[in-house]
Amino acid sequence: MKNFQLTIEYDGTHYHGWQRQKKDITVQATIENALRLMTRQRINLIGSGRTDAGVHALGQVAHFICDTHLYAETFLKGLNSLLPADIVIKACRQVPETFHARFDAKSKIYHYRILNCPLPSVLLRCYTWHIRTPLNTVAIKRACRPLLGFHDFKAFEGAGSPRSHTQRNIITAKWTIDDMDIHQFCIEADGFLRYMVRNIVGTLIDVGTGKITPEKFEQILLSKDRTHAGATAPPNGLYLVQVNY
Amino acid sequence: MKNFQLTIEYDGTHYHGWQRQKKDITVQATIENALRLMTRQRINLIGSGRTDAGVHALGQVAHFICDTHLYAETFLKGLNSLLPADIVIKACRQVPETFHARFDAKSKIYHYRILNCPLPSVLLRCYTWHIRTPLNTVAIKRACRPLLGFHDFKAFEGAGSPRSHTQRNIITAKWTIDDMDIHQFCIEADGFLRYMVRNIVGTLIDVGTGKITPEKFEQILLSKDRTHAGATAPPNGLYLVQVNY
Repeated sequence: MKNFQLTIEYDGTHYHGWQRQKKDITVQATIENALRLMTRQRINLIGSGRTDAGVHALGQVAHFICDTHLYAETFLKGLNSLLPADIVIKACRQVPETFHARFDAKSKIYHYRILNCPLPSVLLRCYTWHIRTPLNTVAIKRACRPLLGFHDFKAFEGAGSPRSHTQRNIITAKWTIDDMDIHQFCIEADGFLRYMVRNIVGTLIDVGTGKITPEKFEQILLSKDRTHAGATAPPNGLYLVQVNY
Repeated sequence: MKNFQLTIEYDGTHYHGWQRQKKDITVQATIENALRLMTRQRINLIGSGRTDAGVHALGQVAHFICDTHLYAETFLKGLNSLLPADIVIKACRQVPETFHARFDAKSKIYHYRILNCPLPSVLLRCYTWHIRTPLNTVAIKRACRPLLGFHDFKAFEGAGSPRSHTQRNIITAKWTIDDMDIHQFCIEADGFLRYMVRNIVGTLIDVGTGKITPEKFEQILLSKDRTHAGATAPPNGLYLVQVNY
């Protein structure tokens, strides 16, 4: 048996998320179908974690175990020729049989991109959240600080999450702006709760528009109460950028 | 009668170009339909020129003449609320009745974007031409030089063009690369023949891949013979960026 690790980039716009579903088209199922064509075996592709409908990935990682004489290079080329244009396998390499894409992940990096200007951009409409109101970046940056470190993120957890505990360690939480009016929130953590990034971003935007203060943001975090947090930011601004092992 | 000038951004991916057609959905027809809803009049929207199917615009300019009590600001807001997400009116202003978007255009700027790296990018697939072979940028930049100035561009003209003459004055022809493997060709001219930018880019790529020399590129330009030029570059890398009046 061989174990292969895939690094995957996808445009989530037209998928119902990563996770295989009965009816809807998902990224996992699309790649599994291509693997089945190549190997004539039903292959179970295990991702580092789910991404929701409309969320993108620049570096999702997954693995699959397979009895095959094919090499990693063959899978890379074969999958890319079989997959639709909105999924690209960036790398494929053989790894020890013990490697597990989900259990071995040490941390993940997500980016959230916001276009902050009066008019929407047609070219970025599927890849950023467009916010007209000028954002107070000083306030947002101040609100980011208390996120760092070990906290209970219950206040930013989506409903129906199947997590045993809600404590996560935030390694990076950085808000930057480029010269094209694009704001980017970069967050690295040892793990993420469902909708956690999008709920944090939604609440940071409440800080940026002046609806709440940075101090209130910290209070919401400490309250562990979801009803205090802001709205969930839309999926199209979110990118799973990197998984560290 | 009032005359209004629109500045328009659009993602050309899902349109059969700018120009109204009997069956297919075009940008011009989509905006005209929205204008009809707002004014209850059949309005003829005149663009600075056509863009082909799949070509994008960051700053297409058009005008329409209309007997209305509505103001420019009302059109800006009304059109943007009626139009699909892949067309945005960036500006609307009332102009003298004599202004003509096509006849008064002094020059136009087009950009052509190429992603030059081994693997395609899913997020840029509709917005760049992906070329795997590493491009020789020194050679391409050398080939760009003879484009400048007044020339007969018959060698780079598409078939079936309805132009009275094929001489055009090139004001800028610049090839740049950013740190994300994206090459950008910027060309400004007093006017463009059909497929001219895409044919020039296709032939510059022949220079970049070593198929022809920069000297051969100049010979092709001077030959005025289309059969000597390279293939037409795909439409998805092309942007109408600005129209100068």
